[in-house]
Formats: sequence, structure tokens, C-alpha cells
Amino acid sequence: MSDEWFYETHKDALRFGLKIDRVLLDQQSPYQRVQVFETPLFGRVLALDELLMTSERDEYNYHELLVHPALCTAPRVARVLVIGGGDGGTVRELMRYPEVVQVVMVEIDGLVVEASKEFLPSIGTAWDDPRLQLIIGDGIAYVQEADVEPFDVILLDGSDPVGPAEGLFGEAFYRGCERLLAPEGVFAQQSESPELFREIFGDVVRMTRKVFGNAHPYFGPVPLYPSGYWSFTFASRTVDPMAVIDARAERVEQHTRRWDRPLHGAMFVVPKDLRAAIAE
Amino acid sequence: MSDEWFYETHKDALRFGLKIDRVLLDQQSPYQRVQVFETPLFGRVLALDELLMTSERDEYNYHELLVHPALCTAPRVARVLVIGGGDGGTVRELMRYPEVVQVVMVEIDGLVVEASKEFLPSIGTAWDDPRLQLIIGDGIAYVQEADVEPFDVILLDGSDPVGPAEGLFGEAFYRGCERLLAPEGVFAQQSESPELFREIFGDVVRMTRKVFGNAHPYFGPVPLYPSGYWSFTFASRTVDPMAVIDARAERVEQHTRRWDRPLHGAMFVVPKDLRAAIAE
Repeated sequence: MSDEWFYETHKDALRFGLKIDRVLLDQQSPYQRVQVFETPLFGRVLALDELLMTSERDEYNYHELLVHPALCTAPRVARVLVIGGGDGGTVRELMRYPEVVQVVMVEIDGLVVEASKEFLPSIGTAWDDPRLQLIIGDGIAYVQEADVEPFDVILLDGSDPVGPAEGLFGEAFYRGCERLLAPEGVFAQQSESPELFREIFGDVVRMTRKVFGNAHPYFGPVPLYPSGYWSFTFASRTVDPMAVIDARAERVEQHTRRWDRPLHGAMFVVPKDLRAAIAE
Repeated sequence: MSDEWFYETHKDALRFGLKIDRVLLDQQSPYQRVQVFETPLFGRVLALDELLMTSERDEYNYHELLVHPALCTAPRVARVLVIGGGDGGTVRELMRYPEVVQVVMVEIDGLVVEASKEFLPSIGTAWDDPRLQLIIGDGIAYVQEADVEPFDVILLDGSDPVGPAEGLFGEAFYRGCERLLAPEGVFAQQSESPELFREIFGDVVRMTRKVFGNAHPYFGPVPLYPSGYWSFTFASRTVDPMAVIDARAERVEQHTRRWDRPLHGAMFVVPKDLRAAIAE
């Protein structure tokens, strides 16, 4: 066993370290440093610019919680847009729905997709699904410029708002998404740690509320991420996140490891000390 | 700013590091190494045998979630026993209830209490409450031998099941608690990370179910602890954790920062992938 460790550092004050058995990839793309490690505790992990993005062991927490709240409540889910999502886990969860006719995924960094296909095949299992249209390109430009039919669901599966993902948390990006979202559509995204990055979390909720009319944060554990407790935000002009479509949920629960209807309701309870962070 | 870091290591595979501005205490007691640090992110933190126990910044998560589920559901709460709890946060939350007549706290390590009184005064604010009987002694021996009136609530606020706290997770300890618990009483404890220490978590639920008749795990974030997502277990022969006494809860909600009735219900939803861990 090696004695090499990977450290992720936040605010120059907190570190999360994983022991590494083997470095499988360490390459600079035009956008960021892309690394894949074999670790004893989390299996294979993907890091972008020294930040852990996903692991074989715990990825289901993140991907199920990003996808199923939107997909089990939106009245139509025929056309879905994913911004980011290069590891393939979000597309995998989307493809569990027979109602999904097309998924357009816009990932800026082709190396992330290639690395995930090669080293993380258990995460991205739906790359060959004919319903997937994969675009290697800039998601911010896409939502502002693409001349396409509206989407029923838009998911932002982006990394932290630094480096290539920085503009994903700005108003111009959200306005672009709103432009492409069907009137009864649902937008959802990961919105950072409500403990460690409470300000970003609050900004996302306020911004999505402003652009989409209503925003509902929800919460769940992601052991790989700093502080371990993560937020997501569900935004829609018309869809109530509590109005789960039972027939659809019941089918997808055959496949999920964490998400189900009892947990769904519980996740949307906003803890008291976070309510101030999302106030107008 | 110094460049010193404190690292907590688990399973020789995961590390959690905090930058340290200043070491306020580093002393060996008869039981363990007791350290208090000043940190930029969590304020002052207490570590026992190189494991982080509590911090000024996030302690309310842990203490409120340990105390209020039991205290807002037990029919009587006049007599409460705390095993461990040397930082004083659990006693502080208990003393918010006028119905509490006596709290007996049995902490094995006097140095933990002294260090907390000196360096963490914002956590233990109720040391001088005349309802507190503080015993520096062995909690395992106490529950097996003490010749006292039964308690309405017993809380295990112990450290991880290594070092002096090892026996706190064994059947002999639980039998002792059961002996001292009133027939309509409630027992609650922290039961480790369901992600990182899933086996210990499952063992606690099974053991408390066996000894007390029913056990109900619940969950919440504790950013200072490994994996960030923590479990607690509520056990009682007769009390349903969902039957919250509203008048009592309404009063204590004036003081809590995280716990309240909407969160209470949500915390007791057991995620799908953890249900297998607690099966018989």
C-alpha cells in the first residue's frame, strides 16, 4: 500500500484527505487538471482542479438526489438538458425513465467524459443510449444561443463556481436556462454545501427564485464533499416539488439506492438556521 | 497566521484537517489526550485522543439533535441522566426545560470538564445550574451499580467506541441503562456516522432495540465529524418519537438554532440504503 494522500483544501482552513493506492490519470485539459485515483475507501475517484467530484462508492447519493426530485414531479420529461455532468451519472439516472425521449448533455471538457468512460464505467452506464445527444461545448453559450425546442427539465450538474464553472452561477446563465425551459418545466442544480459555502447556497436560491419564480432547496449527505452535507435547488414556475407523480416514482424506486418517496419529503424540510440564508 | 494543521485519520484512508491558529491546551489525562485548539473555521475545538469532539461553531447541531427529540416526546422529563457530555452542551440544552428537576451527569474524565469550563464557556453555560449533579466517574459502573430512583430520560453523549468510551457500546452498558430507565422513559445516544461506520451504527440500533424494545435511528449534519452526516438513536419501550408534545416543543423552539418540529419529523426518515444496515 502506498503512503500517498490527496488533499482538498477549502478557505485555507479545512482539508479533506483521501489515501491513494494508485494514480490512474493526471492530465491537464484546456480547462482544468483532470485526475483519477484508486482509493481504499471510496473506490475510484475523479478530481478536477484538486477538488473531488465523484467516487464509485458514494456517487449514487449525489446523482439520485439531483435527478429524481425533478424527474418525479415535472408533468412532462420528454426533453431533458444537462449542463455539465461529465462523469455520466446524471445521464444514467435520467435514462431509467421510459418517458425521457431525448437528453442533450453539454459538457465543456471532453477529457472529463473520456476519463470517465475509461476509468469510471460503473458511473456512466448510459453513454450508448440512443436518446443521448452529447455536445462537448460551453454550456453558458448553449443556453444563451441554442435555437432548439424548449426542454421539460434542465439540470445543472456543474462543479464548484470556480474555474470553468464560474459563470454557471451567474444571472446570465440562469436567464439562458429560463429561455430554454418549457413553461411547466423544472430546473434543478447542486447548490454547494449549506454549511461551508452558505453564501453561495443562499445566492443560488435567491437567484433561481428571481429567474424561475419559485425555488425550493433540499438537502442530503454526500460523504465525498466538504462538510458532507449538500444542498440542491429545485426551481419551477408551476411545479410543486411535493406533488410527486406516484406511478413514475414507484417505477424508478426499483432502481434507486437512496432516493425514494419518504426521503423526498424529508429532504425538502429547510433547517431553521438555513432559512435566514435564503431569505430575500 | 500559523501553518499548523490538526489531522484526524480514519481507517488509515480518510483524513479531516483543520488549520490551527493556536494550541490552548494539550494535556494527557489518566484516560486520554485532551486538546483544545483555536481554529479559523470552527472557532475553538476540543479533541480527545486525536478525534474532534466539538467546536464552538457547529456544536449546536449535535447537542440540539441529541437532546430535543427525547425531551420533546418523553411523557415525564423530571429526572435526566447524561453519560459523558463533558463539554457541557447537552446539559445546557436540558436546562432549557423548566420540567427538568434534576440532571445527573456522569463524566469519566474531570479534565474534559475543566478544559471545557475554561476554554469553551459558550458551550457549557449551565454548569452552575443547581439542578445539575455532576459526578466525575465511570458511567458504565454507575448504570450497573447506582442505587437511585429511575430516570425519565437517559442520554449517552459519549465519544467514539475506542479508548475510555469503548464499553459504552456494549450490552452490559445498555442493560444498566435499562435498569435505571423508568418504564415510560426514553434513551437516546449518538450512534456514529452511518456512512463511514455503518457497522457500528447498525449494531447500536440492533442492540438498543433488543434491550429497550424499540429503536428509531435519526440523522443530521455535524460538519465537524467524519463524513459530516451523523446518526442518533432513540429507544423506548412505550414512547413514539413522532408523538411530539407541542406545548413543550413550542417553548424550546424559542431557543434552538436548528431543531424544530418540521425538522424533527424529517430526521427520522431512514434512507433506503441504511434500512438494510439496521435489519435484525
